[in-house]
Amino acid sequence: MDRRTIDPDLQRALIEAAHAAADAARDVILPYFRAPLVVDNKRPADFDPVTEADRAAERAMRDVFANLRPDDGILGEEYGATSGTSGLTWVLDPIDGTRGFISGTPTWGVLIALQDEHGVLLGVIDQPYIGERFVGGFGTARMSGPHGEMPLRTSTQTTALGDAILLSTFPEVGSPVERAGFEAVSKLCKLTRFGMDCYGYALVATGQVDLVIEAGLNAYDIAGPIGVIEAAGGVVTSWDGGVAHHGGRVVAAANAQVHAEALKILEPFNDSV
Amino acid sequence: MDRRTIDPDLQRALIEAAHAAADAARDVILPYFRAPLVVDNKRPADFDPVTEADRAAERAMRDVFANLRPDDGILGEEYGATSGTSGLTWVLDPIDGTRGFISGTPTWGVLIALQDEHGVLLGVIDQPYIGERFVGGFGTARMSGPHGEMPLRTSTQTTALGDAILLSTFPEVGSPVERAGFEAVSKLCKLTRFGMDCYGYALVATGQVDLVIEAGLNAYDIAGPIGVIEAAGGVVTSWDGGVAHHGGRVVAAANAQVHAEALKILEPFNDSV
Repeated sequence: MDRRTIDPDLQRALIEAAHAAADAARDVILPYFRAPLVVDNKRPADFDPVTEADRAAERAMRDVFANLRPDDGILGEEYGATSGTSGLTWVLDPIDGTRGFISGTPTWGVLIALQDEHGVLLGVIDQPYIGERFVGGFGTARMSGPHGEMPLRTSTQTTALGDAILLSTFPEVGSPVERAGFEAVSKLCKLTRFGMDCYGYALVATGQVDLVIEAGLNAYDIAGPIGVIEAAGGVVTSWDGGVAHHGGRVVAAANAQVHAEALKILEPFNDSV
Repeated sequence: MDRRTIDPDLQRALIEAAHAAADAARDVILPYFRAPLVVDNKRPADFDPVTEADRAAERAMRDVFANLRPDDGILGEEYGATSGTSGLTWVLDPIDGTRGFISGTPTWGVLIALQDEHGVLLGVIDQPYIGERFVGGFGTARMSGPHGEMPLRTSTQTTALGDAILLSTFPEVGSPVERAGFEAVSKLCKLTRFGMDCYGYALVATGQVDLVIEAGLNAYDIAGPIGVIEAAGGVVTSWDGGVAHHGGRVVAAANAQVHAEALKILEPFNDSV
């Protein structure tokens, strides 16, 4: 499907379907988050609440799409690929940030993206515990949360690395070479912080953070963030400037200038594993 | 004042005063958090919203205590020490986690503690954006937030470092020796995460996280967390097992066993700067 053929009514329907799926995932996951210890005591020693929550949430989202968008394909972390006939595919990560989830931090999220053969058309990052949802695509870039609903716009003021706030989930980032590439950028930035999982990408879209650099991502880790950040004015590519929606090494930047500066520093690390 | 002389009515009044101060700080700080960029454009280039929010929030809390507890002393990050006559002192950090605040992460907090000459009697960790408040002392250990109100209890299930989740705000932790001490514990733990600011201490109190190890803290960084964690069943000391409410190198643990294991690993690092 050529994205020019998606008329406004269909765009609205697709945005509504994404919201419905995010709502369904929220309802399923929240009872597992910081569940009282007594729940663990009632279960076998190998009870893994994250895995159960992941699977149940993906099933709930698949049910939503089966009802509302039966001809679309689905690619999910837990249940793999289901082919469709519309040319559109929903890419789902029911809980991105498993380690944050089991630690009780409010930085994990539900990631939903709609793709065609060219790339991401629509993205959602949802943080159920805070009650925040970040949505971008089809001309919209908005968030809702404790402060109400508002537009998303990346920072246009930070154009030099020396003014930039950089995030990544783990200090190790990836392989030793990937860590070295990250650190080469980090030492030029104003501030580097860790531990935000997919929430870091949402913070780029809000204009609070200027760069997220990660490695070793899967497609479903980054497709949702791409939709949100690009709609808010940011740039998301691989470290060598290619498309990012297949995963791997990813740079998400608030604007083209910061993005170009980061890519220049990362360039010497691109050919190494 | 001997803490045995604090009768239940006074305990309730002190808890209410702490809530009133936390409410006042919330109201003042939230408009500064993720403030729209247009605010920056209207201000001089040196506008520092965090400093302004810090000061205004501490003034608001001081006003509350001047009204409700005029005889108590106050020690605040922004305005220093005000002596009292009751033998009780409120220790205030209006925004703990400045770097998290400017990055838009929901991990900073308002810290409030009540101390007498022996140590912390009552502690509050408040996260205004999420709307979570953690309170411990005078026989209570409770939190309120998106899931409603519930008791706080640290984990009693994790008793070995190999099962423990460890947090610290920065991978550097402190001096090179302090980093080495932290890493000696970290490599024995199940999972290490960064970036949570004072929210990490709240997660110990909820039973989600087993250890927070930090260094270079000020008294106002740790007094509130001590009150919350101790009331929830945890142990907070300096790295060498001494009192923690003066700051410095701090270990907050879910229980005595995990605490003892961490102190044993940290012991060789205690005499070095």
